[in-house]
Amino acid sequence: MKKEDIKELLSKMTLEEKIGQLTQIRTSYYYNSNTSATGTASKLKITKDQKWMIGTVLGKLDAEMMSKIQKEYLSNNRFGIPLLFMQDIIHGFKTIFPIPLALSCSWDEELIEKTARVAAKEGSSSGYQVTFSPMVDVVRDPRWGRVIESFGEDTLLNSLFGAAMVRGYQNNDLKNPDTLISCVKHFAAYGAAEGGRDYNTVDISECRLRNEYFPPYYEAIKAGAKLIMSSFNVLNGIPATANTWLLRKILREEWKYEGVVISDWGGVKELIPHGTAENSIDAAKLSLKAGIDIEMATTAYFEALPKLCKDKNIEKLLDDAVERVLLLKNECGLFEDPYRGISSEKEKQTLLCGDFRKIAREASCKSMVLLKNSKVLPLSENKNIALIGPYANNPSILGPWSLDGDINDVITIEQGLRNKNINLQSVETTSFNEISREKVDEIIEKTQSADIIVLALGEEEEKSGEAGSVSNITLPPAQIKLLSYMKKLNKPIIVILINGRPLDLTNIIEEADAVLECWFPGTEGGNAIADILYGAYNPSGRLTMSFPRAVGQIPVYYNSLATGRPKELLKIEKRYKSQYLDIPNEPLFPFGYGLGYSQFKYDNFKISKNELSRKEKISCSIDVTNNGKYTGIETVQLYMRDKVADISRPVKQLIKYKQIIINPSETKTVEFTVNEKDLRYWNGENQYKSDEGLFEFTIGKDSSDGISFEVRLVS
Amino acid sequence: MKKEDIKELLSKMTLEEKIGQLTQIRTSYYYNSNTSATGTASKLKITKDQKWMIGTVLGKLDAEMMSKIQKEYLSNNRFGIPLLFMQDIIHGFKTIFPIPLALSCSWDEELIEKTARVAAKEGSSSGYQVTFSPMVDVVRDPRWGRVIESFGEDTLLNSLFGAAMVRGYQNNDLKNPDTLISCVKHFAAYGAAEGGRDYNTVDISECRLRNEYFPPYYEAIKAGAKLIMSSFNVLNGIPATANTWLLRKILREEWKYEGVVISDWGGVKELIPHGTAENSIDAAKLSLKAGIDIEMATTAYFEALPKLCKDKNIEKLLDDAVERVLLLKNECGLFEDPYRGISSEKEKQTLLCGDFRKIAREASCKSMVLLKNSKVLPLSENKNIALIGPYANNPSILGPWSLDGDINDVITIEQGLRNKNINLQSVETTSFNEISREKVDEIIEKTQSADIIVLALGEEEEKSGEAGSVSNITLPPAQIKLLSYMKKLNKPIIVILINGRPLDLTNIIEEADAVLECWFPGTEGGNAIADILYGAYNPSGRLTMSFPRAVGQIPVYYNSLATGRPKELLKIEKRYKSQYLDIPNEPLFPFGYGLGYSQFKYDNFKISKNELSRKEKISCSIDVTNNGKYTGIETVQLYMRDKVADISRPVKQLIKYKQIIINPSETKTVEFTVNEKDLRYWNGENQYKSDEGLFEFTIGKDSSDGISFEVRLVS
Repeated sequence: MKKEDIKELLSKMTLEEKIGQLTQIRTSYYYNSNTSATGTASKLKITKDQKWMIGTVLGKLDAEMMSKIQKEYLSNNRFGIPLLFMQDIIHGFKTIFPIPLALSCSWDEELIEKTARVAAKEGSSSGYQVTFSPMVDVVRDPRWGRVIESFGEDTLLNSLFGAAMVRGYQNNDLKNPDTLISCVKHFAAYGAAEGGRDYNTVDISECRLRNEYFPPYYEAIKAGAKLIMSSFNVLNGIPATANTWLLRKILREEWKYEGVVISDWGGVKELIPHGTAENSIDAAKLSLKAGIDIEMATTAYFEALPKLCKDKNIEKLLDDAVERVLLLKNECGLFEDPYRGISSEKEKQTLLCGDFRKIAREASCKSMVLLKNSKVLPLSENKNIALIGPYANNPSILGPWSLDGDINDVITIEQGLRNKNINLQSVETTSFNEISREKVDEIIEKTQSADIIVLALGEEEEKSGEAGSVSNITLPPAQIKLLSYMKKLNKPIIVILINGRPLDLTNIIEEADAVLECWFPGTEGGNAIADILYGAYNPSGRLTMSFPRAVGQIPVYYNSLATGRPKELLKIEKRYKSQYLDIPNEPLFPFGYGLGYSQFKYDNFKISKNELSRKEKISCSIDVTNNGKYTGIETVQLYMRDKVADISRPVKQLIKYKQIIINPSETKTVEFTVNEKDLRYWNGENQYKSDEGLFEFTIGKDSSDGISFEVRLVS
Repeated sequence: MKKEDIKELLSKMTLEEKIGQLTQIRTSYYYNSNTSATGTASKLKITKDQKWMIGTVLGKLDAEMMSKIQKEYLSNNRFGIPLLFMQDIIHGFKTIFPIPLALSCSWDEELIEKTARVAAKEGSSSGYQVTFSPMVDVVRDPRWGRVIESFGEDTLLNSLFGAAMVRGYQNNDLKNPDTLISCVKHFAAYGAAEGGRDYNTVDISECRLRNEYFPPYYEAIKAGAKLIMSSFNVLNGIPATANTWLLRKILREEWKYEGVVISDWGGVKELIPHGTAENSIDAAKLSLKAGIDIEMATTAYFEALPKLCKDKNIEKLLDDAVERVLLLKNECGLFEDPYRGISSEKEKQTLLCGDFRKIAREASCKSMVLLKNSKVLPLSENKNIALIGPYANNPSILGPWSLDGDINDVITIEQGLRNKNINLQSVETTSFNEISREKVDEIIEKTQSADIIVLALGEEEEKSGEAGSVSNITLPPAQIKLLSYMKKLNKPIIVILINGRPLDLTNIIEEADAVLECWFPGTEGGNAIADILYGAYNPSGRLTMSFPRAVGQIPVYYNSLATGRPKELLKIEKRYKSQYLDIPNEPLFPFGYGLGYSQFKYDNFKISKNELSRKEKISCSIDVTNNGKYTGIETVQLYMRDKVADISRPVKQLIKYKQIIINPSETKTVEFTVNEKDLRYWNGENQYKSDEGLFEFTIGKDSSDGISFEVRLVS
């Protein structure tokens, strides 16, 4: 449809029809008349007429249902405006990939884009046009359960991987029916909930928002995301859903965003418990004024806008919002083909096809992070293995937010190992949270003749994900106890971790001989774990979040600001520096960290010059040699520190990185170029700028390592 | 001296002499030529000439030394401008009162004022004119060691008690030599250090600063504080010491502050490690421009200002700063009597005089908070007592920041009990951090015939205070173990806690029969503890900070903002509410909580009306009856919630409280009045205002309790 035609269509619509376009309810409302329109929390009154005015729906679907619903809908909607179908397709649709936090540990943009491409192919084949992904909320608190959906603590990585997902979903070709419209979320700073408690207050200065939290949303929009979701939280006193500064000033005025803004589930009416609206009328008014186009899962707009639109200014806001929604439908070709070419046959051929499983296995391998290895990995195939623990043969490794995934499609750890044709001598399942002396004795008995103990430990799925916040981030005591008992057998112990957040692993790391962080690895998890244990894949994952030594160290993240009394000065004065008295300031494992089966040596650092002018660039390079016996991927990281600026700047900030594959004994040269643009920041006075003066750069394997050099920016 | 004379004096001074007035070094520099001018961290180059130009000094002194130093100084200073002597007199000078956090638990403004009055009498008798007190930094993180100096998590209490201290020190009569000039600190928000790690980054929205963090500084200034100290931290990217918005816009323009601004120790040069100044020249320039009058403990001003003052604008800033310093000296009568009437005799009569000890004992009693009491307290005098633990007879109970206090003056817990003439059957000292099986056996042996076990547990002094941040807030494992062993004896156990922060007492509370939080109780601590244990004082302290259930619950404070998904809604929907899955949202002990030996019953609530207009007030009252056998002090608390506002407002906010003494079986009526002013807040758009609409008020014993009623504000 042409833009003019949309304008014309809009001009013909009644007020009620318009409001319908701005209201989102559950898909199930159209196939199950007993269902409530939005969920268990509220039973909505949608009139029979309104049912055929609703603009968008979210939730469970398949190709057949979509065709049926759309057909009935079109025959009832006065103008034949098609319904738009949305779903939370977060880390794969049927083929489930590792959770986003895991994916981010691959540091592989191309791979991440590929997983989104697969999800789009699968999801669109089942009748969806929109996914509520990616989430690009920077997170520094592992207590927050929704950290599983994040790309970690770093601004650059959230920006790169968020944009990669947008490209993967949309493929720059939304008219093509194998794409999905990408909805970036949650605007803004949802990941900074106080105390890591989901939905809690967020309070962050504009300075920090602009330098640390905003860029990933901006980059996702620049990559073409057509939809953005406002977050549940209060931001600096004002709920994001009613935050005019956020949704109008930043998003539309500064960033020139022209797409649709959708609330999160129930967000509009949640202005009432937030204490900024007295009733639905106020809530609708505040939300529309602030810039919420689509109200998800409540009907304040239906209740309020008929009255409010007597005000011409509000009617204008409404019209603009409806136009954006119609344009969105047009964008993905829905007016031309409301079914976007779906069919049950195509769907069947698409879902979980062999190629997709291969990508899932690759993604799982690349997402896992080897945290410790005291010369026990990789395993040789002739050893007897005892596999023990709650995840030994548990298919629940898809992770939260895998709504359409099926545990029957999962390769468990046991299956993965069996696929390797090794001697899996015993498999013992234990409970997550309890262990008896008898059970331990039984396990010890059965484990006598094993050479190696593989403990598959972790957190249950429901311990993370949305609303999955916890105050304690150690493994359950029963599992720590299990490890201690096994330790007494004096056999090498490999700990496999299945979980959704950075954990306090202080006890685990001390006792285990090797620890592999597998996160929730998805459909092909078991195969990927076996690949790594037996050296078919040389682990290459690098942490994108610091692992704290203790929950009392939170927040701990690599790119903190300098203090006036850095701990290093303890050399000069005994107390009075910024530190904890009982633990180091550094995390147990730093951002960027990860082991592999090869040792990479960095040397022969070169730099083109030490002065950079505003129109030039400088380049620097380093030689990386694989001194191990395995071909491997190395992630070479470039960090920056602005030594003097208008505001305090991070002690380190990732600005570039490169991944290279190196064969044994091979040396490769990695080169980075830096120009003035790379040095910019927001200075607290509405200016993005760089400062003449000294910058310190560090090239290293992780954020705690490296070769440093100084560069002076001159005018 | 008249104001005009100060202007004239200023006009005669050389640039170097002026800079001297803005430079503060250590007092010891004047009596020990081997000392460095500022401390171990930096050896300053002060020329012989400059030594007699310095404006102010800080540190150890007595009357005799002061006279000597001042005399020599005056004979060397060209204009005879006297030195001003400053010191950290935080919770008493020689007579040490409980730490400020403890004092705040008395909820007794008059008492707090009295302690400051005593400190001023003592400190001034030893030759000081200024104290760096009160600290009014709102704190919500018990990991932060400096929480000992705070009045807790509440804005109102920090405001009231800070102002009370200012009144106590200055007595509205600074010409009177028994007063001290009060320096309020640390401007601003020093108590919100990230991760509770001292000196760390602070990031807080303007909205929260104005509603929650700024009022106590403002109230201290309104109470007459003549000096304010900038904080060490970065505030929203910019170190407070160089924060023009903070020190010029807020402090001078909005608050019309006319007093002196002093940096914290070394703060000016710390702009270099903060990364906002490249060198001392920049640091001096930024600080002076931002509004720092006196540079404490470094000499950037001496190094930089001779050059920088070629700029007339900077010279003007310098002149203004010097004038303020001279006015400050004039304010306390130093030009008329540079010795302020001190003498060693007067000093001797003043320090630790009997009256002061009495006030200290009263303050200690009123500061202690009874957290648990399973009918074991008060004790009867005929019981055999075993006193055990690291604090059993340990005089180190003065607490951090008691620089001039002497442990030889301390009444220990053992002494306090012995003063009661009771049967103290055995006293066993244990280590803070270690306990052996043998030691336990020995203690058990000696404890056999005791009726009651009193365990005096706690944290060592150096675990809190400045730079005393920790990641773990439980008692050391050795002490928890000691309690567990004693528990097996099946005798009533009373735990006495000596410590400087809210602790995670989950284990302790379960096992002990009674728990008395005594904080660091000061000189008379042992007597006060005995007074409470034997019922000579009916405990009346109320917590001013929430006690978390676990360190992973931080920050937990009573006046948090509402979320859009409050936990109470779990009744309606199973997950998806703001909570931790593993612990309740509520702290172990809430703000305002504290037990006593009486039971107070609240009833007969009355309210004058439920509508409030902007020009009226409403009053409400409640009857409180003492149903116990002991006369006691009850603290009746009035909380407010603004149900609908421009921004999310706290779920509860203390706005008034009253303390009453009630005899057994007596009933007293407590009345509160509320007017429109009480309802105001800063709305995020530069407006302090109130909202028409509903407000919920609650009268209760603590922040988790009470009778609620609604009032509507009408136009």
